[in-house]
Amino acid sequence: MGVTDDLLRNNEEYARGFDRGDLPLTPAKGVAVVACMDARLDVHGMLGLELGDAHVIRNAGGVITDDEIRSLMISQRLLGTTEVVLIHHTGCGMLTFSDDEVKDQIEADTGVRPPFSLESFGDLEGNVRESIDRIKSSPFIPNKASVRGFVYEVETGRLREVSAA
Amino acid sequence: MGVTDDLLRNNEEYARGFDRGDLPLTPAKGVAVVACMDARLDVHGMLGLELGDAHVIRNAGGVITDDEIRSLMISQRLLGTTEVVLIHHTGCGMLTFSDDEVKDQIEADTGVRPPFSLESFGDLEGNVRESIDRIKSSPFIPNKASVRGFVYEVETGRLREVSAA
Repeated sequence: MGVTDDLLRNNEEYARGFDRGDLPLTPAKGVAVVACMDARLDVHGMLGLELGDAHVIRNAGGVITDDEIRSLMISQRLLGTTEVVLIHHTGCGMLTFSDDEVKDQIEADTGVRPPFSLESFGDLEGNVRESIDRIKSSPFIPNKASVRGFVYEVETGRLREVSAA
Repeated sequence: MGVTDDLLRNNEEYARGFDRGDLPLTPAKGVAVVACMDARLDVHGMLGLELGDAHVIRNAGGVITDDEIRSLMISQRLLGTTEVVLIHHTGCGMLTFSDDEVKDQIEADTGVRPPFSLESFGDLEGNVRESIDRIKSSPFIPNKASVRGFVYEVETGRLREVSAA
């Protein structure tokens, strides 16, 4: 039995106590959060979000690729969100390797080189700024008045804002 | 003042009570969850996950594109996860439109047609199976023994497994 079976048992308990089956599709707070997938980030906890409040988009690094533009576009154009909160964090795994070294290793192991960027980065705050820029320069994101970027400190639980360049 | 400022005030309170600053980078349970960004999904709550347990990857639909393969590849190859839990859900916004109608509208509004798929779908369980297939057919994901897909019922809080095709 794997861990997945344990998680399913946890879900049975969650469903027994569940009483929020009436929430609407559109997020109550009109916010979309983009954050790293890191296991030490509890997005709901750190922002005080309740069930139904916000879209949460996450990937390795919390970076902005076409897939995050797709998700934000759907979030804003079809589901009414107007603010974006971007969250990178201290101690991120994406700071610990370079695209080329990992691609070399994968190609050696599998015979195939990943055709996409791994989106690793060396400058945490610079990458937050780049992510903001990628959103602001996209023609597909209509609401750009509140696109703010933060570094979450895994040591303290605190968010600090990254000022524009 | 926007909602983002309210969330930052919530974070000040979170940081005051924070005492988990010593967690390691690698997820304790060795699991990566891929789920829809929908506001009604609390991934930690529904699976009983604690801070530090799992990578959480989310986007519109919980679909698998190159960016989710990138994140899962980093999760497994560099950070040691071995199981994947895929979560789509009832009442998903992705069931309510077609790619072409939204692309037409965006092109009319902005003059630019999105060059990427919007990944809308009409068959919820079928799309879970397709997402599993996209992971299992990728040469970049080394651990495929436990890639399981679920539909989360927003009405009941319950996960039901989607059997393989």
